[in-house]
Amino acid sequence: MATLDRNDLETLRPDGRIRLRPAALLSPVPVVLVGCRGTTEATARPNLIAIAWTGTVCSDPPLVSVSIRKSRFSHLQVTESGEFTVNLVDASLLRAADLCGVKSGRDVDKFALCGLQAADSDRLRHAPTLAESPLTLECRVRSVAELGSHDQFLGEVVGVTVRPDLLGEDGRLSLDRANLVGYLHGEYWSLGRCLGFFGFSVAAPAVLSRRMKGRG
Amino acid sequence: MATLDRNDLETLRPDGRIRLRPAALLSPVPVVLVGCRGTTEATARPNLIAIAWTGTVCSDPPLVSVSIRKSRFSHLQVTESGEFTVNLVDASLLRAADLCGVKSGRDVDKFALCGLQAADSDRLRHAPTLAESPLTLECRVRSVAELGSHDQFLGEVVGVTVRPDLLGEDGRLSLDRANLVGYLHGEYWSLGRCLGFFGFSVAAPAVLSRRMKGRG
Repeated sequence: MATLDRNDLETLRPDGRIRLRPAALLSPVPVVLVGCRGTTEATARPNLIAIAWTGTVCSDPPLVSVSIRKSRFSHLQVTESGEFTVNLVDASLLRAADLCGVKSGRDVDKFALCGLQAADSDRLRHAPTLAESPLTLECRVRSVAELGSHDQFLGEVVGVTVRPDLLGEDGRLSLDRANLVGYLHGEYWSLGRCLGFFGFSVAAPAVLSRRMKGRG
Repeated sequence: MATLDRNDLETLRPDGRIRLRPAALLSPVPVVLVGCRGTTEATARPNLIAIAWTGTVCSDPPLVSVSIRKSRFSHLQVTESGEFTVNLVDASLLRAADLCGVKSGRDVDKFALCGLQAADSDRLRHAPTLAESPLTLECRVRSVAELGSHDQFLGEVVGVTVRPDLLGEDGRLSLDRANLVGYLHGEYWSLGRCLGFFGFSVAAPAVLSRRMKGRG
């Protein structure tokens, strides 16, 4: 999938850069397991789909974008229920996430296949949460846009749950302890080290030294 | 910014998970420098804005989502021109990206401030590309949605340019050589190691051993 053919390499430009064929090459992007369930007998099985075409689109209200092909079983389930959950994926969930990206919920119970546990949400009526996920966003669909190969579901985050080991005694959320996974042009990558924090380029030396202690 | 107060920790649930206040906690997300330029005398200065609220939303046509607060100078520039570029950020560009996230293009020429070079795009009329970026997506605005704190610009990728050192002799794009940066709850992180490729959970042993050689 990552190999380009001759047609992709359109031209070598005067500035030395090479022009590729237009493609969705934004990187690194998140890897998440989206939990969903439909409202009819045929679609009521709790399901998981692996998604990398996702992102935050608004802070207030908190909104996430999740894009799903129209042919997918999960597309039908999210459309029926108007709900989904976004479950962050850590290294221990990666094999399951990859498997959930290549199998269809029409054919198989993916929770059972992967040995994972579906849990009910306090905030949603239908969509299951993934009990093993470090952090889960519970979302209600606010709009759907038909874009081409994928439809974009915008979900409002109406709830968040987190594994207690990711909170310090001071109540501080330490997502850096979660071993989250990113997606880079067809490959899954772990995170390496902390290179800075928002505003580090203008931070006072005392703040820099406190926040970057033992890092970087 | 990463500290939660009492109100954030709503309840400790029976399953041991902790409920947080709804927030945009999807992670890791990309860090990019969006290049833009307006069409009037007041807005014609090439500008850069650091964005983490971005994601891929469609493969065909390739579409990316970029969310910008209405108050930003860049919001005006993208609205006027209907164009922007998405420039991936590597470790060497991180300090500049952070600075471009805290300064406004209304007050300062950010290319000059950061010692970076704006280059013209073959595909766009107004928006500059960042010459130092490993990979640039040239985008035309397809739609704008007013969501709350942020407006979401959907851009169609009409061109891609890449630094030649990221292409192998076989024409294969190796974004893993680019030292890209991800954003994790207020912190910038490097990538660590390759944990697998799309489909690895069902790959034949020979494929696994070839593609994961020297990795993981």
